[in-house]
Amino acid sequence: MTAHINSKEQVEAILDKYDYFLFDCDGVLWLGDHLLPWVVETLDLLKQRGKSIVFVTNNSTKSRNDYLKKFAKLGIDGIKKQEVFGSSYASANYIDKILKLPKEQKIWVLGEQGIEQELSELGYKTIGGSDPAYNIQFDENHPDLNQLDDSVGAVIAGLTTNVNYLKLSITLQYLLKNNKSLPFIATNIDSTFPMKGKLMIGAGSIIETVSFASGRQPDAICGKPNQSMMDSIKADNPPLQQSPARGLMIGDRLNTDMRFGLEGGLDTLLVLTGIESLQSIEQSNIKPTYYANKLGDFYQLTK
Amino acid sequence: MTAHINSKEQVEAILDKYDYFLFDCDGVLWLGDHLLPWVVETLDLLKQRGKSIVFVTNNSTKSRNDYLKKFAKLGIDGIKKQEVFGSSYASANYIDKILKLPKEQKIWVLGEQGIEQELSELGYKTIGGSDPAYNIQFDENHPDLNQLDDSVGAVIAGLTTNVNYLKLSITLQYLLKNNKSLPFIATNIDSTFPMKGKLMIGAGSIIETVSFASGRQPDAICGKPNQSMMDSIKADNPPLQQSPARGLMIGDRLNTDMRFGLEGGLDTLLVLTGIESLQSIEQSNIKPTYYANKLGDFYQLTK
Repeated sequence: MTAHINSKEQVEAILDKYDYFLFDCDGVLWLGDHLLPWVVETLDLLKQRGKSIVFVTNNSTKSRNDYLKKFAKLGIDGIKKQEVFGSSYASANYIDKILKLPKEQKIWVLGEQGIEQELSELGYKTIGGSDPAYNIQFDENHPDLNQLDDSVGAVIAGLTTNVNYLKLSITLQYLLKNNKSLPFIATNIDSTFPMKGKLMIGAGSIIETVSFASGRQPDAICGKPNQSMMDSIKADNPPLQQSPARGLMIGDRLNTDMRFGLEGGLDTLLVLTGIESLQSIEQSNIKPTYYANKLGDFYQLTK
Repeated sequence: MTAHINSKEQVEAILDKYDYFLFDCDGVLWLGDHLLPWVVETLDLLKQRGKSIVFVTNNSTKSRNDYLKKFAKLGIDGIKKQEVFGSSYASANYIDKILKLPKEQKIWVLGEQGIEQELSELGYKTIGGSDPAYNIQFDENHPDLNQLDDSVGAVIAGLTTNVNYLKLSITLQYLLKNNKSLPFIATNIDSTFPMKGKLMIGAGSIIETVSFASGRQPDAICGKPNQSMMDSIKADNPPLQQSPARGLMIGDRLNTDMRFGLEGGLDTLLVLTGIESLQSIEQSNIKPTYYANKLGDFYQLTK
C-alpha cells in the first residue's frame, strides 16, 4: 500500500529514516522551464538536515555543467557537479570505466552536446552529434556513408531534436560495421517525455529506429531504470552502496523512476506533478513506498 | 527442397504451369538505377506467352505513375498502371475501400509524394508528407504541435528521407489524439532496404519510432508480406483470386517476398541478385519453390 504524504509527522519520519534523497528533475523539481512551488525550500530543508542529494536525469541533451546552469537559472543555488547524475555523464563514464575504451578511439554520437561534453571531459573525441555538418538533406553519396571512420570504437545514441535520415543512416552503418561488433550504448530508453502538456518523442523511440534497422539491442542503457546508472551513483556514494535502504528515490514516473529505486534497493516516492496520477499507481504492478501531490509538500507540511 | 532453375526444360515447365507472374522490383528487375541483365527480354518472353504480370513494391516514396516513369527510363516499355502495385497505392486504397474514410477528412502523412499522389487520385487531401513547410528545425511552439487539425481522419506512415523531429512529433500527437483512435496505416514495415551495396533505414524502422512513442502498432500494413496487399491484387485480378496456385511470386527477400507469395497461396521464386544468398535459403524456415541466380536466366536458358 502506497502511503500518501499529507502530515508533518510523516515528513519528519521520512527525514529521520533516509540519508540519501535521489531526485528525478523534470516533473519533480520543474516542468520544462517552470520551477514547481516550494522546491527550493524543500531542498534547503533537506540540506539543513544534513541529507545527501543526488539529481538523476535521463535527459542526455544536457551535460552536468548544463544542468548546473539550469539549476542556477531557475533559482536553485549551491548545487555541486557531483550531485548531478545525467545519462550523458553515465554513458561517457560507462565507455571509460566499464568498456575502458582507449582514448585514441572516437565515438560516433547520435545525440546532442550533453554527450559530447561529458565524453570530452573524459578525454574522448566524438564525431556526429551536434556537428552542424550533419544537419543536411540526405544524400546517398555522403562521404561518411561510404567511408566509415575506422578509429570509431563505440556508438552512443540518445535524444536529439536534430535527428535526420543522414544521421540515422550513418549510425546504422556503424552498428553493422565489423559484424555488428562496435559497442552500442543507449543513454536511456524513455519512449516519450512531457513538454508543455504534451508527450514528445523520447530517446528510446529514436533508438528504436537504429535498433530495429540493425537488428541490435543496446549493449548498455545508461539511464533509469537501468541499474548500470544506479551502480555508478553508488560507486560515487559509498554510504548509499552500503545501505541502499537509507536512500529514497523521488520521481514522477512509475516505470522509470520508481522501478529504478526499487530495483536498486531504495525506498521510493512518486510525486503527481508529472505524468502519473493516483489511478496509475492503482493500475501498476510497481507500488512506490509513498506518494505526494508535489515535492513542495515536504516543506509546506513542516510549517 | 528449393529447385535451382538452370535448364531450358525447367523454364518451359514454369511457363506452362503459371499464368500470373508477380514481381518484386528492386533487387529483381534493377538494383537502384541499374537494370539487371536480360530483364527486358525476360518480361517480353512472358508477355509473348500471354502471361499476366504484376509488379509489387513496398517502396512508398513513389506513386504508380512514378513507377511507370522509372520503368520507361530504364528501358522497360509498355507497362500499364494497373500492372503496378505499390505500397503507397495499397495504403491509399485501404483508406478508401476498407476504412471508407469520407473524402472531406484529411490524412496526416509521415512519408513522401508517392503516398500523397495516390491519395490525391482517390480524392483525399493530405497534410504533412512532402510539404517543405515541415522541413525545418524543431520548435516546440510550432503551431501544428499545439493545434491539431480536427479534420484529420487517419495517419499514414512510410519511408521518408526527410524525416525530422518535428514530423515525428506531430505524427505522435495525431496517433495519441482522441484516445489513440485515429486509424494508423503503415505502408510497409521493412526494417532496411539495399542501396549501393549498403543497408539503409527502411520504412519499418522509422515507423518504429512513432509506434514505440505512441504505444500503438499499425492497424494495417499495406506492404509485403502483409496479405492486405495480396487481397488487393487478387481483387483486381479475379483469375488469380480463383486459382492462386497459377501464380508465381518472384522476389529477392525470403521474409517479405517469399512469405508474401507463400501465405497468399502462390508458388515462389527467389532470385539471388538482391540481399539473399543460397545460404540464407538453407538457414531460413521459408523455403521458396524455386531459386534462380538472376531473373534474366529465364530468357538466357530459353536461347
